[in-house]
Amino acid sequence: MNPCLKVKELITPCVTPFTNLDEIDYAAISVLIERLVRFKVTGIFPLGSTGVFPWLSLDEKKSVITYFRNSSDLKIYAGVSSTDVRETVDLAKFAKAAGCDFAVVTPPYYITAGNAEMKSYFEEVLSSCDIDFFLYNIPQFTGSVIPVDLIEYLSGEYSNVSGIKDSSGDMRYFSRLLTTGKRKFKVLQGQDDLLLPSLSLGGDGGICGISNISSIVVRIKEEYERQEMDSARKLQVDLVNPVMDALNSSRFPSGYYYGFYASIGNNGGYRTPMQKPDSASSSRIDDALKMLNEYR
Amino acid sequence: MNPCLKVKELITPCVTPFTNLDEIDYAAISVLIERLVRFKVTGIFPLGSTGVFPWLSLDEKKSVITYFRNSSDLKIYAGVSSTDVRETVDLAKFAKAAGCDFAVVTPPYYITAGNAEMKSYFEEVLSSCDIDFFLYNIPQFTGSVIPVDLIEYLSGEYSNVSGIKDSSGDMRYFSRLLTTGKRKFKVLQGQDDLLLPSLSLGGDGGICGISNISSIVVRIKEEYERQEMDSARKLQVDLVNPVMDALNSSRFPSGYYYGFYASIGNNGGYRTPMQKPDSASSSRIDDALKMLNEYR
Amino acid sequence: MNPCLKVKELITPCVTPFTNLDEIDYAAISVLIERLVRFKVTGIFPLGSTGVFPWLSLDEKKSVITYFRNSSDLKIYAGVSSTDVRETVDLAKFAKAAGCDFAVVTPPYYITAGNAEMKSYFEEVLSSCDIDFFLYNIPQFTGSVIPVDLIEYLSGEYSNVSGIKDSSGDMRYFSRLLTTGKRKFKVLQGQDDLLLPSLSLGGDGGICGISNISSIVVRIKEEYERQEMDSARKLQVDLVNPVMDALNSSRFPSGYYYGFYASIGNNGGYRTPMQKPDSASSSRIDDALKMLNEYR
Amino acid sequence: MNPCLKVKELITPCVTPFTNLDEIDYAAISVLIERLVRFKVTGIFPLGSTGVFPWLSLDEKKSVITYFRNSSDLKIYAGVSSTDVRETVDLAKFAKAAGCDFAVVTPPYYITAGNAEMKSYFEEVLSSCDIDFFLYNIPQFTGSVIPVDLIEYLSGEYSNVSGIKDSSGDMRYFSRLLTTGKRKFKVLQGQDDLLLPSLSLGGDGGICGISNISSIVVRIKEEYERQEMDSARKLQVDLVNPVMDALNSSRFPSGYYYGFYASIGNNGGYRTPMQKPDSASSSRIDDALKMLNEYR
Repeated sequence: MNPCLKVKELITPCVTPFTNLDEIDYAAISVLIERLVRFKVTGIFPLGSTGVFPWLSLDEKKSVITYFRNSSDLKIYAGVSSTDVRETVDLAKFAKAAGCDFAVVTPPYYITAGNAEMKSYFEEVLSSCDIDFFLYNIPQFTGSVIPVDLIEYLSGEYSNVSGIKDSSGDMRYFSRLLTTGKRKFKVLQGQDDLLLPSLSLGGDGGICGISNISSIVVRIKEEYERQEMDSARKLQVDLVNPVMDALNSSRFPSGYYYGFYASIGNNGGYRTPMQKPDSASSSRIDDALKMLNEYR
Repeated sequence: MNPCLKVKELITPCVTPFTNLDEIDYAAISVLIERLVRFKVTGIFPLGSTGVFPWLSLDEKKSVITYFRNSSDLKIYAGVSSTDVRETVDLAKFAKAAGCDFAVVTPPYYITAGNAEMKSYFEEVLSSCDIDFFLYNIPQFTGSVIPVDLIEYLSGEYSNVSGIKDSSGDMRYFSRLLTTGKRKFKVLQGQDDLLLPSLSLGGDGGICGISNISSIVVRIKEEYERQEMDSARKLQVDLVNPVMDALNSSRFPSGYYYGFYASIGNNGGYRTPMQKPDSASSSRIDDALKMLNEYR
Repeated sequence: MNPCLKVKELITPCVTPFTNLDEIDYAAISVLIERLVRFKVTGIFPLGSTGVFPWLSLDEKKSVITYFRNSSDLKIYAGVSSTDVRETVDLAKFAKAAGCDFAVVTPPYYITAGNAEMKSYFEEVLSSCDIDFFLYNIPQFTGSVIPVDLIEYLSGEYSNVSGIKDSSGDMRYFSRLLTTGKRKFKVLQGQDDLLLPSLSLGGDGGICGISNISSIVVRIKEEYERQEMDSARKLQVDLVNPVMDALNSSRFPSGYYYGFYASIGNNGGYRTPMQKPDSASSSRIDDALKMLNEYR
Repeated sequence: MNPCLKVKELITPCVTPFTNLDEIDYAAISVLIERLVRFKVTGIFPLGSTGVFPWLSLDEKKSVITYFRNSSDLKIYAGVSSTDVRETVDLAKFAKAAGCDFAVVTPPYYITAGNAEMKSYFEEVLSSCDIDFFLYNIPQFTGSVIPVDLIEYLSGEYSNVSGIKDSSGDMRYFSRLLTTGKRKFKVLQGQDDLLLPSLSLGGDGGICGISNISSIVVRIKEEYERQEMDSARKLQVDLVNPVMDALNSSRFPSGYYYGFYASIGNNGGYRTPMQKPDSASSSRIDDALKMLNEYR
């Protein structure tokens, strides 16, 4: 393996906190960023799925990108997906101009893409802008998987393919990304409960939603880097997995919002169609937060 | 059954034709509208999935709605879906102000919705604007089915629920929409090959993509209205189904674009990520068009 | 269409009633057969999925086939599926020798079959025995769909392919079975709620579980034959569909067993792993039976 | 973790080799068993899915169990699944009497089971026979997942629940099996390409089809036990995964049969419906075998 891939990443797919007036809560973002520095995450990913990018206007998206970029020295991975390829390109150029380090892009969604459509879409985006890109595989939302050989092809043809975020939850797919011969791109796990198995296979790190709330996933990465396998395993299986189940006991991504708001003592808003978790779920999340606090 | 539901609909989910410079081809839209009047369709649905609404900018969407409204006396069903509920509401208000007859709205997509999320989303949209709405069930693109009892609930609470377009292809679901007691809304089939079975169950008509190209689906509706069941059956099984298979031999919706362009002697454009059908598929579609011409 | 296909079928996929000692209740089978003659069904299908063939021993299967054959002059369609092709052939030969009219066979299950595997399996079965066969498409249980072109191929090569029972619930698939050029085989619908749409497309009839309990589905067939479309539609949508929903409110096929036992005033058994419907479901089924009785 | 769980397992789900006359090839089984001792596998699992149990007669199953038991001192995990619960119980008793160490049982298949059905089925089997059981989760073949809490319940109520083989390929599910509090059962991975990630999470080993052909998966287990993580990773990603892809380039389980026959210089048979791999797939498997030989 390329030794430069030995540095593991733990990146936060940030929530986009709202006020009770349904406006973006920049004060809460500040609190989040400050926390992430303390957590020692290696990068910040605004406008991912956890950041509910499809529910923001273009203006809001640009404003969020700018705010994150200007508030932190951490590497910024800016989500730039849209159903309209021209808006995606526009956002990627904006992110570049704003000084972001990477742009993250999903395949087209709603009207699902076949291989030819995905190839054409990614080629148009990659060639339009010289920012470094992460491809974002999340078939449960886009309706199609990015084929492993398309990723290899794009990585060979375009120098700005930096990596892939795989949120499919399919370890077999993830594993195949790692066997590609002279891999030149990073492979990051997008599901918190699959972080340790992914590291054990040679994955380059994780983009883990729980890091909005707790440094526990950063600890797994650090234990793994020290090859403290048993300690990493316990954190993963006994702490992260139950916490993740609690957060997902309410429909994604509402549990992450409830948990984040609770963790900063804030009573934030839930933009339509997101619903505040019901009492059974809220109480599971409260318990999970307590468990995390006791651990520290 | 409410006798006023006996009038069957055959509505066209219009393509949005493009020029080779990737601009919307309004001249081609004119040709389409003229044709639809001749075909005797009962309504026009711009900005549906066939109209590739997710690939248009907000300005383009408004311009397309205005153009359709101003170019035809037929009833206009304007697609207003967006991932951002505020844009959906904005478009519905725009459609109302432009003089459209109906607005058509899908559930949220990308981040998929549960029942509570869908309810909240539809309630916000329905109460924001006094245009009459059709709900649009298309789980293959939105990732979730609109529950039958949610439709009943919304129809009871909001006077502007006019109907539902079901493009799921699931006749069992379609059938359950028809059994709802004192149904006050129309139920339209969104899959051309299920038109006759849907009419036979008491469905109120179809929103059929083939009507961009041929009046054959209007003929099925007319034969059914005359209770010429055998004639309707032959048109459905021997003509519409093979034509539909040909159009779908290229990834949706490219076959409809190729077929439409060919039918007006135009060499139009394919906006990214749509690809022009390959030669095997093109030639199947050419044959299908010949078959339709010979029938007439 | 071949005029001989104009005769519509309504066949009963029979339950295999059990006593409380977990033995096959032949007395209850007698009551069932007597009823089916009265219902004017056109055929009897023992050892289908409703007949829970996988839960019977080989001896029980043979005994059931013999009993049905010897107790009725109606056409007998004997289920002969097994995971072991040699047992399937054995059962088909047994059914032939017993005087059954047809044998009904699914693709291999558990280890799912691709097209080549399915072709090889069906060819071995069809060529091993000169009984007439119905192929049985039920992908929800076998894990694979019988390809339309494989059915056409087998129908062309083997003179004993009499038809197909499609229980997939996929009207698009069903519809494609009907468009095959010089079709020489019957196409029967296996889902009660899709009976009328299937007839309207030219399907040859239905194999409908509700006919274990009520003649209502026979009535739909008769109304359709008389081209009394509105009457057929009302029976389908307002009566059969709610009854089917009630029967399926308990896990398949327990609702059919409960309903059958209730309809003959018997308190029959549920072989493991089948469970007696819980009280909510039982009471829905009781109501459905009342609704059927009031209709008559 | 219970220290006794620290011993990792690597068990072979054995092929059932056939002669060209479609008979079970006991001489080939002898060769296989001899090899497995040399490979240092920790157990032998005849009559699993790789052993194509559904295609064997009851007599063949018993004969295979007896042959394996009498030919080896390794622990024998005998597959006892059937669609008929009474045959499952019969086989479990037979395996016990024959001196097998464990019986392995799937949920019911074809007619898929809900939770209540699965519970009733497993309870009947577990209480019928005092052999130790492994539950076998393979939803791609049975159509239903064994719920994690059902496994916990059964493990609490029945002392003969020794473990679970999870072949779902779903690492999230596998992971949840490991978080169950005071786990008293072993959790084994049934997919070769997920062996190392499973070990890294605390799984108790694997039941890996490649061990019919090569000791490479045993080596991964051994490297893991020595905590040689990088070496284990390379074997998994660079060797096992490509070999597995080659074996699965032909429809399961034909690649395992072709590979096994090739590895013992035998030209064995393929029982219907299994097909000999086509030339493209055969040549991929030949290359994979060469790669394995070069590694040694």
